[in-house]
Amino acid sequence: MNADNPAGAAARRFSEDAARAFADAVAFDDRGLVPAIAQQHDTGEVLMLAWMNRDAVIATLTGGRVTYWSRSRQAMWRKGDTSGHVQDLVDARIDCDGDTLLLRIRQTGPACHTGAHSCFYRTAGDAGPRPM
Amino acid sequence: MNADNPAGAAARRFSEDAARAFADAVAFDDRGLVPAIAQQHDTGEVLMLAWMNRDAVIATLTGGRVTYWSRSRQAMWRKGDTSGHVQDLVDARIDCDGDTLLLRIRQTGPACHTGAHSCFYRTAGDAGPRPM
Repeated sequence: MNADNPAGAAARRFSEDAARAFADAVAFDDRGLVPAIAQQHDTGEVLMLAWMNRDAVIATLTGGRVTYWSRSRQAMWRKGDTSGHVQDLVDARIDCDGDTLLLRIRQTGPACHTGAHSCFYRTAGDAGPRPM
Repeated sequence: MNADNPAGAAARRFSEDAARAFADAVAFDDRGLVPAIAQQHDTGEVLMLAWMNRDAVIATLTGGRVTYWSRSRQAMWRKGDTSGHVQDLVDARIDCDGDTLLLRIRQTGPACHTGAHSCFYRTAGDAGPRPM
């Protein structure tokens, strides 16, 4: 139990079969990746977008902890393993074409590596992007 | 004035200079594209993800009507020109790395070409994706 998860709600987890069936519906791109949007489940705030390969999709659904594929490090990246800023899965959605995922999550701490709560902390202004 | 936009609120529009300064901050990928998430500004619902090139970013900010780059048609695609299901710009945000956009919009009609309000109408279930 912590301040970000006062109810201590469990992450949503799926069986290996369910996770594979979900991954089978994903239209991965020519690099084998799909963009995944992370949205705080209760406030609706969009926190970040990162990428998943098939293994990351299955690890996220079976483990209940959001796991991406780091394109820069070319490695699996279970969010929060280093920072503690974990993302617990609440619900996983897939779009009409199967080429984008929407993860409804419970964020612990900031989602952004800059320390901002959301990665989208800059907005268009009269002289380019400015902090909100 | 219509049912989806009862207040008849104006779309947000930017000057050409402001739009270019915003586009200068975007880290387009090796195809010259950036993913753009469309989120209903008042409910927080995530409606779709599509792609923009530099011209689409500038057209969106100067025109106030969300305009994507259609990868399948290889053409500019001002959302709603055919369907009437326009997206009026409320706010444009950019993430920490500059490689994803978050568009806060006012959607008229359904966002999805299937007629669903959001493209994310399927959720992970015990036997793969299922309608919500």
